[in-house]
Amino acid sequence: MITLISGTNRQNSRTRAITNIYQSVLEGKGAETQIVDLAEILPSDIIPNGLYANSGKHEDFNAVRELMWDAQKFVFVVPEYNGSFPGVLKVFIDALKFPGTFTDKKAGLIGLGSGVQGAVLAMSHLTDIFAYLNMSTLGFKPKLAAIDKHLANGEITNELYTTMLHQHAEKMINY
Amino acid sequence: MITLISGTNRQNSRTRAITNIYQSVLEGKGAETQIVDLAEILPSDIIPNGLYANSGKHEDFNAVRELMWDAQKFVFVVPEYNGSFPGVLKVFIDALKFPGTFTDKKAGLIGLGSGVQGAVLAMSHLTDIFAYLNMSTLGFKPKLAAIDKHLANGEITNELYTTMLHQHAEKMINY
Amino acid sequence: MITLISGTNRQNSRTRAITNIYQSVLEGKGAETQIVDLAEILPSDIIPNGLYANSGKHEDFNAVRELMWDAQKFVFVVPEYNGSFPGVLKVFIDALKFPGTFTDKKAGLIGLGSGVQGAVLAMSHLTDIFAYLNMSTLGFKPKLAAIDKHLANGEITNELYTTMLHQHAEKMINY
Amino acid sequence: MITLISGTNRQNSRTRAITNIYQSVLEGKGAETQIVDLAEILPSDIIPNGLYANSGKHEDFNAVRELMWDAQKFVFVVPEYNGSFPGVLKVFIDALKFPGTFTDKKAGLIGLGSGVQGAVLAMSHLTDIFAYLNMSTLGFKPKLAAIDKHLANGEITNELYTTMLHQHAEKMINY
Repeated sequence: MITLISGTNRQNSRTRAITNIYQSVLEGKGAETQIVDLAEILPSDIIPNGLYANSGKHEDFNAVRELMWDAQKFVFVVPEYNGSFPGVLKVFIDALKFPGTFTDKKAGLIGLGSGVQGAVLAMSHLTDIFAYLNMSTLGFKPKLAAIDKHLANGEITNELYTTMLHQHAEKMINY
Repeated sequence: MITLISGTNRQNSRTRAITNIYQSVLEGKGAETQIVDLAEILPSDIIPNGLYANSGKHEDFNAVRELMWDAQKFVFVVPEYNGSFPGVLKVFIDALKFPGTFTDKKAGLIGLGSGVQGAVLAMSHLTDIFAYLNMSTLGFKPKLAAIDKHLANGEITNELYTTMLHQHAEKMINY
Repeated sequence: MITLISGTNRQNSRTRAITNIYQSVLEGKGAETQIVDLAEILPSDIIPNGLYANSGKHEDFNAVRELMWDAQKFVFVVPEYNGSFPGVLKVFIDALKFPGTFTDKKAGLIGLGSGVQGAVLAMSHLTDIFAYLNMSTLGFKPKLAAIDKHLANGEITNELYTTMLHQHAEKMINY
Repeated sequence: MITLISGTNRQNSRTRAITNIYQSVLEGKGAETQIVDLAEILPSDIIPNGLYANSGKHEDFNAVRELMWDAQKFVFVVPEYNGSFPGVLKVFIDALKFPGTFTDKKAGLIGLGSGVQGAVLAMSHLTDIFAYLNMSTLGFKPKLAAIDKHLANGEITNELYTTMLHQHAEKMINY
């Protein structure tokens, strides 16, 4: 089972479209998957009711905390916001059970952005965070730059990007 | 005028205590200051009502957006959460006017943490983000590690830390 | 077989001492190992005779290039120099066969330093480089800070550091 | 006086071509400049004779050490090698007088590469190193990606790149 994190709470995001595509790729290779989409599972009151003294006290979010605790292998699909990952993605991580949610687990990263960087710094920063939490990150991290030109009607129109997602999926299954 | 950002919305935080101390140091050297404390100014509904399609539509937050737009020099006091900066600090940045809030401005960073790193990676990540936004960051970034042992009754009890804050304040005034 | 890189060419370095200790730990757990010590294998004329147009033309270094090409799993023991890894370690990497020396391989990192950081940024930078080269890095990266106080007569005198090396060795064997 | 570092010792490099262009831009705006080109000043025996116990003992290199000690403002032109800066550039830094060569000074960075990243990670890593050495780095860091397509006969053929170098030069003069 590979747990896919769609890493923004923006509605109808390209991030979710890529997550769906990647899920199909994984399932086409026989992997079981589940999606955790921040747009669906991050409560709008997570900041006042799910952090610090209230960590673990948000009833709706607790099911996600358990799911993340039980999952063993993750792929985070991460858009670039302001040169790094979205703040809400780090809020999500900050609201999980600590320590232990990610200890000795494995992660993959797929970055996307409307600019030319393809979230390369966002993925570098997340790799640091995962390492701090004792989770290992697959070295191969597709950078889907200028994504607005390469995604149409929920399909990727760039052959290289499709190839990279297939390669990433193969590597994650074997990681 | 130097604008100090207390970089967490946790109540009664050590981050705010350090921010207060640093403010005194700056003012003792003749600088004008103002504090933007996320614990006071980040609306609890910023996630649903202040991002993406709602950017700029949160009435209460708009005054802070204007203040940040007008400010020219910042010092961010940043605690280490999960190996980087708090998610809420990036949410705050993501909710500001884009582009332009930080363009051609100058920032300083002061890191603190209960562990041994003193938020060194948090400050590296933020420096990347500020650079992406075309803001320059002062190279000298005090790392206040094991802060719970060196802060009591709102006072720093570690002479080296006090010295570093004074040095940082001098450099920021001249930056 | 795990290939250990002693990441500086400084003679009689603490880095080599740690590499030897770590080798004993690995072998005590039944792993086969070999050491590549930059102090022994990096030719003094690698800069003029082993880079760019001369890549692969340095006879003495070519045996190391082959060894690195054939190896599958690495642990780099990395001292902190000027806030990152030693320049000579990157020269070593730049002189290897490209592309492919590290593709789809796995690495571990152990950092040491006389300061308080324990080479945390050095390891972050190397993790970025390894990712660029499509090599995955184990998330758990021991930071052996203030190493001059915790190493005597070729033995580590800090129990936590010894524990971390044992944990790292276990994880590398299973990575 | 702004000191320009051409950050590779590769002969006839694009890095040096960009350095020359940037020098013209700076001088066109009235700035005084000097170039330190690693291809000219890094001794081929710097590794055996200019590091560690031999630091400061390489007669030919000592003039450069003095020049770097005296200089106050730098711009490093940095090619991407293996996902970061060239190893020889860090060897150069490691061979300078320590501590103090960069303390309280200011730097700019210009990155180039044949790939799509334009040395973004190389510049992030160097910014960390400069910060460790207490040197501040200008936030705006031009990324000259796919440089082989945009440089011909020593001239930049991409108008955006030319604009960025002019903007960078203006900002450096005022930094």
